[in-house]
Amino acid sequence: MTAVPYLALIASVLALLLAYYFAKVVLRADQGTELMREIGEAIREGAMAFLRREYRWVSVFVAAMFVLLLIVPIDGRPAASFAYLMGAVLSSVAGFIGMRIATAANTRTANAARQGAAKALPLAFKGGAVMGFSVAGLALLGISINYLLWVKWIGVDQAFQVVAAFGLGASSIALFARIGGGIYTKAADVGGDLVGKVEAGIPEDDPRNPATIADAVGDNVGDVAGMGADLFESYAGSIVAPVVLASLLVPVFLEGDSLASNFGDAEGLLMYPILIGALGMIASIIGALFVRGREGRSLSGQLHTGQYVAMALTVVFAIVGTLVLFSGSPTIGSYELSAPIFLAFTIIVGLFGGWAIGFTSEYFTSEHFRPVKGIAQQSETGPATVTIEGIAQGKLSTLPAVVLVVAMIGLSYLFGGLAFGEAGDVIGLYGVSLAAIGMLAVTGVIVAVDAYGPIADNAGGIAEMAELPPEVRGVTDSLDSLGNTTAAVAKGFAVGSAAVTALALFKSFSLTAGDQVFLDINDTAVTIGLFLGAMTPFIFAALTMSSVGRAAQAMIVEVRRQFAEIPGLREGEPGVKPDSRRCVDISTQAALREMLLPGGLAVVLPLVIGFIDVNALGGFLAGAVVTGFLIAIYMANSGGAWDNAKKYIEAGAHGGKGTDAHAAAVVGDTIGDPFKDTSGPAMNILIKVMTIVSLVFVPAFL
Amino acid sequence: MTAVPYLALIASVLALLLAYYFAKVVLRADQGTELMREIGEAIREGAMAFLRREYRWVSVFVAAMFVLLLIVPIDGRPAASFAYLMGAVLSSVAGFIGMRIATAANTRTANAARQGAAKALPLAFKGGAVMGFSVAGLALLGISINYLLWVKWIGVDQAFQVVAAFGLGASSIALFARIGGGIYTKAADVGGDLVGKVEAGIPEDDPRNPATIADAVGDNVGDVAGMGADLFESYAGSIVAPVVLASLLVPVFLEGDSLASNFGDAEGLLMYPILIGALGMIASIIGALFVRGREGRSLSGQLHTGQYVAMALTVVFAIVGTLVLFSGSPTIGSYELSAPIFLAFTIIVGLFGGWAIGFTSEYFTSEHFRPVKGIAQQSETGPATVTIEGIAQGKLSTLPAVVLVVAMIGLSYLFGGLAFGEAGDVIGLYGVSLAAIGMLAVTGVIVAVDAYGPIADNAGGIAEMAELPPEVRGVTDSLDSLGNTTAAVAKGFAVGSAAVTALALFKSFSLTAGDQVFLDINDTAVTIGLFLGAMTPFIFAALTMSSVGRAAQAMIVEVRRQFAEIPGLREGEPGVKPDSRRCVDISTQAALREMLLPGGLAVVLPLVIGFIDVNALGGFLAGAVVTGFLIAIYMANSGGAWDNAKKYIEAGAHGGKGTDAHAAAVVGDTIGDPFKDTSGPAMNILIKVMTIVSLVFVPAFL
Repeated sequence: MTAVPYLALIASVLALLLAYYFAKVVLRADQGTELMREIGEAIREGAMAFLRREYRWVSVFVAAMFVLLLIVPIDGRPAASFAYLMGAVLSSVAGFIGMRIATAANTRTANAARQGAAKALPLAFKGGAVMGFSVAGLALLGISINYLLWVKWIGVDQAFQVVAAFGLGASSIALFARIGGGIYTKAADVGGDLVGKVEAGIPEDDPRNPATIADAVGDNVGDVAGMGADLFESYAGSIVAPVVLASLLVPVFLEGDSLASNFGDAEGLLMYPILIGALGMIASIIGALFVRGREGRSLSGQLHTGQYVAMALTVVFAIVGTLVLFSGSPTIGSYELSAPIFLAFTIIVGLFGGWAIGFTSEYFTSEHFRPVKGIAQQSETGPATVTIEGIAQGKLSTLPAVVLVVAMIGLSYLFGGLAFGEAGDVIGLYGVSLAAIGMLAVTGVIVAVDAYGPIADNAGGIAEMAELPPEVRGVTDSLDSLGNTTAAVAKGFAVGSAAVTALALFKSFSLTAGDQVFLDINDTAVTIGLFLGAMTPFIFAALTMSSVGRAAQAMIVEVRRQFAEIPGLREGEPGVKPDSRRCVDISTQAALREMLLPGGLAVVLPLVIGFIDVNALGGFLAGAVVTGFLIAIYMANSGGAWDNAKKYIEAGAHGGKGTDAHAAAVVGDTIGDPFKDTSGPAMNILIKVMTIVSLVFVPAFL
Repeated sequence: MTAVPYLALIASVLALLLAYYFAKVVLRADQGTELMREIGEAIREGAMAFLRREYRWVSVFVAAMFVLLLIVPIDGRPAASFAYLMGAVLSSVAGFIGMRIATAANTRTANAARQGAAKALPLAFKGGAVMGFSVAGLALLGISINYLLWVKWIGVDQAFQVVAAFGLGASSIALFARIGGGIYTKAADVGGDLVGKVEAGIPEDDPRNPATIADAVGDNVGDVAGMGADLFESYAGSIVAPVVLASLLVPVFLEGDSLASNFGDAEGLLMYPILIGALGMIASIIGALFVRGREGRSLSGQLHTGQYVAMALTVVFAIVGTLVLFSGSPTIGSYELSAPIFLAFTIIVGLFGGWAIGFTSEYFTSEHFRPVKGIAQQSETGPATVTIEGIAQGKLSTLPAVVLVVAMIGLSYLFGGLAFGEAGDVIGLYGVSLAAIGMLAVTGVIVAVDAYGPIADNAGGIAEMAELPPEVRGVTDSLDSLGNTTAAVAKGFAVGSAAVTALALFKSFSLTAGDQVFLDINDTAVTIGLFLGAMTPFIFAALTMSSVGRAAQAMIVEVRRQFAEIPGLREGEPGVKPDSRRCVDISTQAALREMLLPGGLAVVLPLVIGFIDVNALGGFLAGAVVTGFLIAIYMANSGGAWDNAKKYIEAGAHGGKGTDAHAAAVVGDTIGDPFKDTSGPAMNILIKVMTIVSLVFVPAFL
């Protein structure tokens, strides 16, 4: 049994080796023409510069939290501070590595696309996989090291907060990376498009548009680095939550005796999530090796193969691993883990639940199904009806997502109880928390497939800017449109796991507070908290959307200025180049400035409410988790649906490009930009940051 | 003390007499030219035809509920069934009367506008006041009669459900009137505008547009009848909720003894809300008499005077009435009502809380403040940025509203406790429920001022269609724009009271369920309910928005057909008239068909969940109330802000009419139509219907 953390160490090292190997493959590939190299260089520079500046700002925040964790009276000091730091540093490192390779893979994918999709696809995937396996590998590495350290040095009883602090460190980075990246990418995209496409009448990604480079940088800092940090946090959180919960449940099982008093039997429950992480990692590595470019096979089939192999193996490994780990049917207090196979079922419920949520996202956002077709249909009567229908469909899409999450909660609760031979109150909660790690067991492949999207998108932009032949752009477009679908699935995993993880952290919060918290909905403090909590995601959406608007305006002013002041730019005279660097600067500064208020609120609000009234904080968290989940689904799906309705029209429906219908669909797409890439994804991290802050600080509140 | 219900009877009769007097005044006024009379006739016919058909459909639903209430094992049968019927019938009657006079006041206001605003304003106000005082008068009448009946005939202990059933009857009508009316009005408005203004290039309210009459009908069935039914329900609910809660609290005070055992001392708590209703009614009547047309005084000043007088008198009356009613400091069990003045303070908190929420709505939706100016500013970069900023501002506007509601809950909870000499758990709840009746004490004037808006709007349309001189349209426009502001304030009262009333009903639900319900947020069933409940307003918004989209499409097809097939219509040749009747039919049928699904869900969902698991229903209601409140605020304010941003530009900002900025603002306005007039207002009634259904049926669930 004590082998589990070491198995996890080995799995993480394997993941990092795979990332290293893929990085080598990517960097060895040819960058193409001199112009492509130049453009690639500009994008990379812009992206890395942003990341450096972002990390510099965030490091101030991290330092402050580090000190705060040393000062406030929580358990496990000072180890918690160092665990926090480790979480933050490892997440940053994963972001740096992943982005460095993603910004190398884009030019190389564009160049490979000259030889067809079969060459380009695996390169883009490998580029994304570097992020995927850096994220998953470093997260699992951090947790295993933490586990080994705190069991030995601190003792198990009070040390759950150390593991939680590791999660908080990851959350801190994710919070700012998601918000900052989301604002950056949409400021450049919306601002650039509005002047370029609408006013100047030049196509997307045209090298004459000064914001084109900033837009490409945005794809990297938003969809690669932001998403990577988000999933680092999600993955870490999904393991941290059940470990912490188990460490709090065992004393309940033991009717008050400490965890340490019966650690031998109880340890399995704490290690089990780590084991699933390790097994899922190995499954993901094998899956990733299945993604190869083959002529004549469908692109989506090739990309999905890796995911399906990883999922199937995870199921097999989980069943075997569970039976082996709990072969002795350990007894904790009066509870006997008599049917451990049910714990494996909770993992499977999570895995397929996440996949199913992703599938419903695809239904609502793919042009093959009714919702997007209906939105495209509404474009015939102008932008207003497109917008109304897009909002309606996005809101409607919360129905299947909620039903799935609720079913997952119910089933995993049931299975958690059955594992101990009786369905029941406290026991079931452990099952619920396991569903999240089930969902994210294959994080390596999920992130790989998700980060593949912006790399393909970037490659398309580079092909356009480097004036490669149109058939190359055709190849990259086919890769890109596939990326939109895979991104929908990845978002399903991300948001589904966010809800379940936040719920598990919330239960841990309640258990930690114990008798000192009374979370009956009828309690007036809880009611007040519920209102305030449910409001927070609305405010968060408002702030981030307004930020995008303001930043886009600044971009518009600059692009207009360049078109007006640089002679020959609009006309595309040879040798006349825009000043892309200034646009990159504007996006960078706007994103950094605008991320502070919403990011700060996410940390400060639960602290303020918690110090005033812990019951209110309980209501606050419940309201925020539920509403945040709904808004995340709604905004992501509305945005995705608008995007694909536009693409559906561009492919020829309702008259195609240049018609009024197309213009109406473009409006929908632009509205959807901050929905799907800024505000929506920020909800996942918002709800987890708020719960994990509350969990870590709850001893100080009481 | 037993005089209170009789006082309420007298106040209601006075209100109805005032309505009768105002109706006489309106009907005596001159209808103007033959053409005006004809147009007015067409609008009235369309509106009354819709109302009749709507009531016919709804009567099936009401009959089914009547039978259901006879069958299921709830307390107070069969009186509950008849109380239910009485609530439904009185609400319908109020709607009929109010709409009949509103559709008479519109032409007469247009005609009076030929002699200036000082003549037209009081006429439009009196037209609205008929609805206002019919609604308030009949609601208070129904409650007083019910109270007198059930105390005598059924006995007090089990009879709270009879009063609740009265509220449910009112809710049933309001539910369908709000949804059906909301869909009707926006189908005609959006559909007519999109073809007329955008495609055919003819101005709003032009007699050539076949949808113009349907649009004017829509203002009546949506903003007059729908709003009237809504406020009948709100007002009734705000009195019913504290009465029911008091009848459930007293046994708690008496430590298990029945209400009947100590009715003498306890009765005051049950009568107090009725007393406040009666006193507020008298204050409203006096206030309404203060609204007179005077040359040279600001229009808004004259309209607001009535409201302020009513509010000031209510404060005075409430303080005096409270001290008189509770002069003996009654003792209930071990609780002595030693400081009754604090109960009056809860009333005042409610009254000013509602007003303050209205004021924040005005801040976010009036062109005098930053939010609307910011939205108008974003019109410079097109419809997408207008939409993004409008959504952001609407979501941001939930902040002050939630803070106010939370403050109201906290303060009235505190005062409720202090009235009994100790702040405390159960006692405070009674205080919270009183805040709602405080907020709606002046319903008569609120509805009058709110229904004034659509009458002025209709008058403008009639002036346009009847080709009156432009200065008449100028007068009606000035009346109309004032109506937008007063409507914002009325919406503040409506939504604020919805949240507080629903909360009070929810507490009653919990008290009725007693020990058989366990609403800890950590309970898995409660968690699942919370997710499902929070989702429901999203689905409700999606369904109603899609309905408007579909109905508008049908309207567009018909208007296009008429322009294509009726020669000379578009060109405006003399003698060529559109077939308005078909457009009225289309709106009517669409509204009736589309209201069934969302309306049915609101009733069926809590029943289904309740019969499965009452804990889950508790979570469900809490989630729905909180999210419904947020979405109501957000959608109403986004919609109102877009509307006024457009008007702000039309008044000359950003280049005025005909510019791209104006076109962008029109898109925002159209998106806002279903936001502010269909989905948003439907939330208030949704959350109350669901809680009151749960409350009435809770004995059957257990």
